[in-house]
Amino acid sequence: MDRYLVISSDCHAGLPPERYRDYLDPRHRDAFDAALPIQIAATEEAAQKFLVADINEEWRKGCGDQLSGAWDHDMRIQVLDNDGIAGEVIFPDGITEMNMPPFGAGISLPTEEVVPELQWAGARAHNRWLAELCQMAPERRAGIAIVPVCWDVDEAVREARWAKENGLRGVMLPVRWGKQDAYHHPKYDPFWAACEEMELVVNFHSGPAPMEDYGEGQGMVGIYISEVVWWLVRPLTFMLWGGVFERFPRLRVAITEGTAVWVPEYLQLLDFRYEDTPYSAKLGDYTSHLSMKPSEYFARNVLIGASCMPRREAEMRHQIGVDKIAWGSDYPHPEGTWPNTVENMKETFRQLPQDEIKKMLGQNALNWYGFEADKLAPTVARVGPKPTDFQ
Amino acid sequence: MDRYLVISSDCHAGLPPERYRDYLDPRHRDAFDAALPIQIAATEEAAQKFLVADINEEWRKGCGDQLSGAWDHDMRIQVLDNDGIAGEVIFPDGITEMNMPPFGAGISLPTEEVVPELQWAGARAHNRWLAELCQMAPERRAGIAIVPVCWDVDEAVREARWAKENGLRGVMLPVRWGKQDAYHHPKYDPFWAACEEMELVVNFHSGPAPMEDYGEGQGMVGIYISEVVWWLVRPLTFMLWGGVFERFPRLRVAITEGTAVWVPEYLQLLDFRYEDTPYSAKLGDYTSHLSMKPSEYFARNVLIGASCMPRREAEMRHQIGVDKIAWGSDYPHPEGTWPNTVENMKETFRQLPQDEIKKMLGQNALNWYGFEADKLAPTVARVGPKPTDFQ
Repeated sequence: MDRYLVISSDCHAGLPPERYRDYLDPRHRDAFDAALPIQIAATEEAAQKFLVADINEEWRKGCGDQLSGAWDHDMRIQVLDNDGIAGEVIFPDGITEMNMPPFGAGISLPTEEVVPELQWAGARAHNRWLAELCQMAPERRAGIAIVPVCWDVDEAVREARWAKENGLRGVMLPVRWGKQDAYHHPKYDPFWAACEEMELVVNFHSGPAPMEDYGEGQGMVGIYISEVVWWLVRPLTFMLWGGVFERFPRLRVAITEGTAVWVPEYLQLLDFRYEDTPYSAKLGDYTSHLSMKPSEYFARNVLIGASCMPRREAEMRHQIGVDKIAWGSDYPHPEGTWPNTVENMKETFRQLPQDEIKKMLGQNALNWYGFEADKLAPTVARVGPKPTDFQ
Repeated sequence: MDRYLVISSDCHAGLPPERYRDYLDPRHRDAFDAALPIQIAATEEAAQKFLVADINEEWRKGCGDQLSGAWDHDMRIQVLDNDGIAGEVIFPDGITEMNMPPFGAGISLPTEEVVPELQWAGARAHNRWLAELCQMAPERRAGIAIVPVCWDVDEAVREARWAKENGLRGVMLPVRWGKQDAYHHPKYDPFWAACEEMELVVNFHSGPAPMEDYGEGQGMVGIYISEVVWWLVRPLTFMLWGGVFERFPRLRVAITEGTAVWVPEYLQLLDFRYEDTPYSAKLGDYTSHLSMKPSEYFARNVLIGASCMPRREAEMRHQIGVDKIAWGSDYPHPEGTWPNTVENMKETFRQLPQDEIKKMLGQNALNWYGFEADKLAPTVARVGPKPTDFQ
């Protein structure tokens, strides 16, 4: 092997807000024009309150115009080449808080305080644009469609079908369902069936958490970053116990940018609960609808999008599952590895066995999202990191 | 040492529902009379739906009249003696779903769909009765007052003061705050100050979880038992990041019946978040109000009420903290060790070092809840397990 095939399981793309107008259904453009200044103002306010504008701006200064790869094809190719990345999975929200689709259809995809019809419209606008972006380099880009499934399952099935027909490779669902039905509800079965049949990966991406609980004050950030992974993993808990993977054995789920360190303890807990214990005997039969242990469904049906993977996760790879970890760069987010991806990678993977690096850096994501190795080969031969990089 | 001092960090007591009437403020007795049949019907319905009536009834058959120790002084002494237990920490809800204080003042202490004034009245009725029960054997019983603090902090301070003056040793707060302010809010500071000053332990007891998310169907029990510990620990996350232990360094908290296996990973996560990382730099300064790492506050300010402690937790005792684990029997709940406490204990602690067994079985709870060893000595000499039991 001359070079490693690298696929980032977590990258982001989004248009500057005003440019989503052209991709919207015309009937929503008046609402868009009215909402745009409000969205921009709210974004700026959030940047002052939650994110630290100074730090972000300082970071961006060093980036030159390379952040425009968030929406610009040529720049994106150049940036990913420099990072040694051949393929990428593309989520919404380009430069964190600056490239959100309209009407609350961004990465946090809330299920409260939004208008469902408008959120659908914003999601569709993004999906249309994303499909165009991916079609400019289909072998390298696995685009993830935004699907606010909780509002209307039939509509979600239609959008998934549109996504498939237009070359996208997965769907991103809301992490939090608010007052809507949770993901163990049988009403979602037609959607899981459609994703299974079309080989669309169901993605949950980190970010959402109940900010309304966190209030103001210096404590809130610590609470947020301590809880956010749990909220991300929560849909999986509901799907596992709800028997979704029993009914849809080929359904593929990805849990992205939530670290991987929680996996061993999480599976141990669920398996412990699955096996009958005196503690839960009084609760009756709650496992006979599942033919396997939670950890066995996990091994078959789940992939971890391990964004900005630290060395510790590489060291825990056997406990987590070396087939379950898909490295990600998180470009163009400031917490991502870019523009120091190569250095980061070296630190994370140094001196690990070659076949294991291969899986975590690319092979796992390749299999999950349906990339084709032969089509990526010329890019890999040109940009991929070399085995000597990890010695 | 002839025998071990054993303190159960988690026992329960409660009156048969109709007998709370005498302990209620007279002005709430009409409401009580109206609510009692509704409460009993709701309890029976819940027993059919969530708990398995058959299993509970089968279990109770084998107990003879010893479950009446849930409220009867003499029987309680006899049961605890037989279990080898000298001292106990007493939470509400005697026989799980059968001895709840009125008006939603039971162990789940909800903050939604209850009338605050009535919940306070129910809590006070229980606290009055509990104080009487404890005064019959004050050296052996650390009663925990029910305090629905989220409604009104001044009222909560008054109730805590009443509890202290009447010999109770701690307060139990709602695990979930619903639409009320979470526990990092500075409005709670007068309450933390009062508990610190009076040396009242602040207790969170397992049970509450967002049942409204779980719906119906076979999956819901698995989800509940997989999530319930997280909901229990959540108040601690808010208190830690909120700087509560920075401002009230002698405040003592107990987290009870939520296992102890989560402790190492939880503290590792919080410490990791505490130490500045590239991931969270963009979020600004969120640690300068804390002079110590989360794990250091935990070591100083938190005790784990390790009910029905399995062998695995004993094996993890150094990762969890051998000073942080306080064994509990959970009498008279069916998931508890009673009536097989001695056998359970032997399995959990066999062949561990004597000084470590001593801490986990009694010493830690003794220190935390202010029991007096010399007053317990005669009981210990009569009922405590012997070192040979753990060989």
